[in-house]
Amino acid sequence: MTESSPLADSSGVTIGDTGEFALIGRITAHLPDSDAVLVGPGDDTALITAASGSVLATIDVLVEGTHFRRDWSSAADIGHKAAAASLADIAAMGGVATALLVGFAAPADLPLDWALECASGIAAEAAAVGACVVGGDVVGSPIVTLSVTALGDMQGRAPVLRSGARPGDVVALAGRLGLSAAGLAMLSRGVSVPSTLVDAHRRPEPPYLAGPVAAAAGATAMIDVSDGLVADARHLAEASGVCIILGTSAWGISEPLTEAGLALGVDPMEWMLTGGEDHGLLATFPADVVVPPPFVIIGSVADVGSSESGGEFPGVMVDGQRREGPGGHVHFGGLIRG
Amino acid sequence: MTESSPLADSSGVTIGDTGEFALIGRITAHLPDSDAVLVGPGDDTALITAASGSVLATIDVLVEGTHFRRDWSSAADIGHKAAAASLADIAAMGGVATALLVGFAAPADLPLDWALECASGIAAEAAAVGACVVGGDVVGSPIVTLSVTALGDMQGRAPVLRSGARPGDVVALAGRLGLSAAGLAMLSRGVSVPSTLVDAHRRPEPPYLAGPVAAAAGATAMIDVSDGLVADARHLAEASGVCIILGTSAWGISEPLTEAGLALGVDPMEWMLTGGEDHGLLATFPADVVVPPPFVIIGSVADVGSSESGGEFPGVMVDGQRREGPGGHVHFGGLIRG
Repeated sequence: MTESSPLADSSGVTIGDTGEFALIGRITAHLPDSDAVLVGPGDDTALITAASGSVLATIDVLVEGTHFRRDWSSAADIGHKAAAASLADIAAMGGVATALLVGFAAPADLPLDWALECASGIAAEAAAVGACVVGGDVVGSPIVTLSVTALGDMQGRAPVLRSGARPGDVVALAGRLGLSAAGLAMLSRGVSVPSTLVDAHRRPEPPYLAGPVAAAAGATAMIDVSDGLVADARHLAEASGVCIILGTSAWGISEPLTEAGLALGVDPMEWMLTGGEDHGLLATFPADVVVPPPFVIIGSVADVGSSESGGEFPGVMVDGQRREGPGGHVHFGGLIRG
Repeated sequence: MTESSPLADSSGVTIGDTGEFALIGRITAHLPDSDAVLVGPGDDTALITAASGSVLATIDVLVEGTHFRRDWSSAADIGHKAAAASLADIAAMGGVATALLVGFAAPADLPLDWALECASGIAAEAAAVGACVVGGDVVGSPIVTLSVTALGDMQGRAPVLRSGARPGDVVALAGRLGLSAAGLAMLSRGVSVPSTLVDAHRRPEPPYLAGPVAAAAGATAMIDVSDGLVADARHLAEASGVCIILGTSAWGISEPLTEAGLALGVDPMEWMLTGGEDHGLLATFPADVVVPPPFVIIGSVADVGSSESGGEFPGVMVDGQRREGPGGHVHFGGLIRG
């Protein structure tokens, strides 16, 4: 997934050789601009228009060895992935991203090319949704750490919270399930095929536009599937005080997932239910709403304590069974979040 | 500087025992709220009012071993300091901070108390300017790393950029100079006195209100003194295309600085000229403006190439001598930024 970048050179220079201010200059010289940016990089802060009179804001942190490995992903991939994690959160409110701020912590011996390609990846992912990198910080650290703040605008719509799901709603998903987790499982065994899975781990493709589409169509609740379908469905269920009922019998399992499951002796449905980092969008809609594409109905919302809910408290049912436990990523644990 | 915190307990529990979501719950349960926060912690993003139709945004990253040491500063101190670095940037535009987002990366064996006290310090520093912590991320990392994004509002004023200084303006400073650097120098020798200096290193006291005051009084340019007076005066001079003329003969040197200078064989004026992290505000004002307190005039702005500028390019003159070199912090270098 290495790509040529207008920022890259191959002189063997490190960011320690370059120094903080020259590195910032190299990165910001190539950043695209937009009308929403009133003050861009180079001052104490950026100033961005907030046309709706309010601003969405979120931060995500990716740490080398926890969220990515430099020998498994290119610098550009890691930049795309770091930006995607924050941009998907803006989409999950029904908003449109306007700007990113990037905290870049790295050791002095990091190759300058790596830093520039990573910055290029972040800027490219932002540009795909019409957002710009408007500021950042560059500091020394033994561990490469990317902190990405995304700002966004609701464009006059109401934000779609996690807490709005109501009994009788349908549950729908936009985007992919389990591909990133399966790709990570393959990489962990030293295999970098199938490319569909490995690429999905390296560079997720959140369905950004589906967020505002869902908000406009009347979605009652929405969440970014970053921790895994069951885990994030549970977050939504708990915030809304409801039970989410999922039935997998009609779900297609893609050929690469089936193939990887056979190779590793894993039920691919488990990746689909618990794998994170694909950044799909899980939303609920009133039953009388025509669910807009690319959303696909995958379940329904029930009252806590109803006959189908499987318990007296909010939670998730999969194929008639209450699904307990984290059902997704465990943090502070393994080398790689997954 | 340890303080009792409503969040702290002393059970020997680590954040790995607690887990990501319970830790977030513990932190957010005690966060203050404000009318500006439309959606606070607990959803995919926060939503904050931006009454002026625009939003200031900045990120700063503090890394253990680069910017702080846990054996030199309390968790609350480090939280205050991390928040102050970003909040001072908002002030340096002439703005008022509204919200913080905090990325918290830490090892699983970090004591829960440490994390809660640090979060409490961040929230307390934000509260001092009327801002709230509205979101964050908690991830595993071998190194404690705090990424703080601050958002702010210009309240209808124009932002004060680095680029607006004009020949004939006066140069004025609000806040302290050299105290943090001298405190760091003492801590580096294993000494934790004088407390004025060591406390200043542990917990800076940026003159937040001076930022909007300067903007309202007609400041032409402004910058947060985070890298050191000469280094940040040079940033301002370069952005404005001018020469900044500083004369130190009338500057008082405080007794603790004198004392520390004698103890370490250092000219305390060097700390005042090159020490960072006190987060004073350096501003320029037209000569006919009455400079508002707490600003004190410390120099003037000259044309590049004029008789007093010392050169044909933008820069800084101190007591008649051109001041070259970084004149401030060197990053990617020593154990501690300083």
